Amino acid sequence: MADTPRPRVVIIGGGFGGLSAAKALKHAPVDVLLIDRRNHHVFQPLLYQVATAGLSPGDIASPIRWILRRQQNVQVWLAEAVRVDTARRVVVLTDGDVSYDYLILASGSTHAYFGHDEWCQYAPGLKTLEDALEMRRRVLVAFEQAEREPDKAKQRRLLTFVVVGGGPTGVELAGALAEISRHALANDFRAIDPESARIILVEGGPKVLPTYSPELSQFARSALERLGVSVWTGSLVTNVEADKVSVGGEVIEAGTILWAAGVAASPVGASLGAPLDRAGRVLVQDDLSIPGHPEVTVVGDLSALRKPDGAWHPGVAQVAIQEAEHAAHNIERAVAGQAPEPFVYHNLGNLATIGRNSAVAELPRVHMKGYSAWLFWLFVHIFKLIGFRNRLSVMTQWAFSYMTYQRSVRLITGNDGWSDRE
Amino acid sequence: MADTPRPRVVIIGGGFGGLSAAKALKHAPVDVLLIDRRNHHVFQPLLYQVATAGLSPGDIASPIRWILRRQQNVQVWLAEAVRVDTARRVVVLTDGDVSYDYLILASGSTHAYFGHDEWCQYAPGLKTLEDALEMRRRVLVAFEQAEREPDKAKQRRLLTFVVVGGGPTGVELAGALAEISRHALANDFRAIDPESARIILVEGGPKVLPTYSPELSQFARSALERLGVSVWTGSLVTNVEADKVSVGGEVIEAGTILWAAGVAASPVGASLGAPLDRAGRVLVQDDLSIPGHPEVTVVGDLSALRKPDGAWHPGVAQVAIQEAEHAAHNIERAVAGQAPEPFVYHNLGNLATIGRNSAVAELPRVHMKGYSAWLFWLFVHIFKLIGFRNRLSVMTQWAFSYMTYQRSVRLITGNDGWSDRE
Repeated sequence: MADTPRPRVVIIGGGFGGLSAAKALKHAPVDVLLIDRRNHHVFQPLLYQVATAGLSPGDIASPIRWILRRQQNVQVWLAEAVRVDTARRVVVLTDGDVSYDYLILASGSTHAYFGHDEWCQYAPGLKTLEDALEMRRRVLVAFEQAEREPDKAKQRRLLTFVVVGGGPTGVELAGALAEISRHALANDFRAIDPESARIILVEGGPKVLPTYSPELSQFARSALERLGVSVWTGSLVTNVEADKVSVGGEVIEAGTILWAAGVAASPVGASLGAPLDRAGRVLVQDDLSIPGHPEVTVVGDLSALRKPDGAWHPGVAQVAIQEAEHAAHNIERAVAGQAPEPFVYHNLGNLATIGRNSAVAELPRVHMKGYSAWLFWLFVHIFKLIGFRNRLSVMTQWAFSYMTYQRSVRLITGNDGWSDRE
Repeated sequence: MADTPRPRVVIIGGGFGGLSAAKALKHAPVDVLLIDRRNHHVFQPLLYQVATAGLSPGDIASPIRWILRRQQNVQVWLAEAVRVDTARRVVVLTDGDVSYDYLILASGSTHAYFGHDEWCQYAPGLKTLEDALEMRRRVLVAFEQAEREPDKAKQRRLLTFVVVGGGPTGVELAGALAEISRHALANDFRAIDPESARIILVEGGPKVLPTYSPELSQFARSALERLGVSVWTGSLVTNVEADKVSVGGEVIEAGTILWAAGVAASPVGASLGAPLDRAGRVLVQDDLSIPGHPEVTVVGDLSALRKPDGAWHPGVAQVAIQEAEHAAHNIERAVAGQAPEPFVYHNLGNLATIGRNSAVAELPRVHMKGYSAWLFWLFVHIFKLIGFRNRLSVMTQWAFSYMTYQRSVRLITGNDGWSDRE
C-alpha cells in the first residue's frame, strides 16, 4: 500500500462548501488540494457589517491555509481556475494545469443584474471583502459630499440610498444604513443632518424575505419602517444609471445604489459540459455528481438540485456545508469501492437581522422575532465565526457599538480614492 | 461683536499636525475648517503593524470628523488642496476654492526615491493605509507564490525580502517580517519552510537608527540579527527593478522590496512662494510663518526649521504636534492683536521596537533597551491611540498575538488581486 499513490482530490473554492469538504476529508486516505483565488475564507453572513462600517475585514475573514494548518493531507494554493477538462481530468488554471482523481467544484456565485451587466458600475453587489469595502466607501463618501454641497436638490440626492433586493442581505443592509444615519453619524456633521437621509428598499416580489413565512416577512417590514426605511414591494427595477434607479415608471435620484438582488453561477460550471439551469447552475444528479462523471461533484451555490418537494435547495451556507460533507462522504465511499449515496438536506433554519435590536428566525419547530431572535442571531453568528481571535474581536466591538451606537470602522480607503466619483 | 464675522482658520491636513492645531483652537474665537483628502486620521507609528498583518486598518485610524465631533467651531471637509494663492488668501481645491484669514499648512510628506520615481512601483513606501495594505498584499503573496514554485532559484527569490532604509520604520518592518516567517507562518505551508525566508535590511549610513545613540543603534542591530535579519549598513541602493535591488556592485534578487528610506515634502508647499530646502520643505521663520505672510504657518514634515544647535527639527510626530499647538497659539495672539512668539521644541524622546520582545527608547534623561523598553513602547502606543475602541482592540489583539505568535490579519485584498504580479 505504501507504494500506491493516494488519490488526489481537488477542491475549487474556499467558501463554506470548499472548506467544509476539505475538513470532512481529514481522515480519508486521499491528498487534498484546495484552490481559491483569494487567500481567505469570508464569513459571508456578516459581510454587510463590513459594508456598513461595523466590522473590519479582518474580523470576518481568515486565511484558508491557517484554518487548515493542522490538517496534514491538505495543501492550499492561491490560484484561479479557468475551466475543467473532464475528459483529461484536469483543472486549467490561469497559470498552469492540475490533474485530479476526484473533483469537488464549489466556486459559488457572483452578482447578476438580470442581463444588464452595465448596471454593476452604478450599483455594486456584495460577495467579497473588496465589494464590502467599495460599498462602505460609497456610503461614507455620499455623506461627505453632502456636507459640502450647497445645492439642496443635489444634497437630497446624495442623502438618498437605494437598496435593490429584499432578501436577507438587502434587509440587513437597509437596516444598518438606517442606524448609521440616525445614530452613528448624527453629531459629526455641521451642514447636513444625517437623520434626513432617505433609505429605500426596493423588492420586485410582494414581500421582503420572500422565503420566510408571511408573519415573519410582515414583522421584518414593520421593523424596517420603524427604523425609517421606505419599503417598496412589488417594485421591479427597470433601469439603473449613474445616481438614478428606475422603478416601473418612477425614477429615484439616489447618490448611492446598492445591489442585493440576483446571483449568477460561477462560469467554471459551464465548462463541465453538464446541463445548466437558467442562472448557469449545474444540474447535478441526486448524489451531487454530474452525468457520466461520478468523480466530479458540484456543491453550494453553483449546484442545482431539487428537494423531494420539488423546490430547489436554496443558495445558503447550510446547504453548501451539507452538500460538501456529503460529497466528501461519497469520495470516501468511492475510494473504498462503494457506490455513492443520494444527498438529503436537513433544514436547520433561517435568520435575518433588522438593525441593532431586532431579527427574525425561522427554525424547523419554532419561529422567533424581535429581541429574542436578535439575541439568537448574535449568539449563532459569534459561535459560527472561525477563529477565537475573530469571535473575541466581534464580541468586543458589538458590545461597544451597542453601548455607544457608533460604527467603529468608518474609513474611506481605496487607491482610486473618493475623487473618482466626481 | 455679534455682527463681526469670526476669522476663518483653514487647516490643510488631518495628520498629527493638522489635528493638533484644530484641537488647540477649541476655545479660540475663530471658525476652523480642516481639509484632508482622506476621511481618517492615521496613527502613523503603528502603520507597519498593518503592513505586517498584525493589526487592521480600523485599529489605527479614526474618522477625522468623529475625532472632532464635539468641537463646535470646527468643520471638516473631505477635499484635496492643489495650491495656495497667498496674494488672494485662497486655497485652491480640485473642485473649488476656499478663502482664509489664517492658514496652517500641515500636508506632510510622501516617499522619495532619491530622484528615481520609477522605483516606486517595485518598492512601495509606507505613508497611508493603502500603502500598508499594498505592502501586506505583496508580503503574503510572495509566500503563496513560493508554495507553488517548483524552481528552487525562483522560490529562493520569492522568499527574499529587502527593506531599504534603517530608520525606525525600516527596523520595525524588518523585525516584524522576521517574526512572521519564523513564527506566524511556520506551520501553514507544505512545500516551503517559511523559516528559510531571508530578510535583508539595507541602510546607506554607517548604522541603523541613525539619530539614536551609538549604544542603542548597536543594540537594535544585534536584536535584528538575533531575529535572523541580515543588516547591511554603509550600503547605498543604486538601482531598483522588478525583483532586483542593486547595492553598490551587488544585485540582490528579491521578490519583495519595501521602501523605508527618504521622504519628500507635499507639493502644496511649493505654491506658497516661500524658500524651500532640497527636499521641498518650506523654510519657515522662527514663529513658523513664511516671510511676508504672518497669517500663513507651516508645521510638521512640510516645515523646515533649525534648532538652536543648528540641527533641523526631525520629521516626527512630537515635532508636528508641538509646532501645530504653537501655530494655534500664535493665531490666538494675532486675533487678540498680539505679536507672534518664536517656536521652542521640547524633546520628549524617541522609540523604536524590534520584534515582539525588544525595543529601544531614547528619553531626555534615560536610555532604555530590550524588554523594559518594549513594555514602555507598548504602553505609550496604546495610550496615544485615538479612541477607546481602538485602544481596547489593539490591547486585545496584541495580548492574543503575544500568546499565540499569530498575526491575525493575514488577508490579501485589493481589486487588482494578486494576479497582477505575474
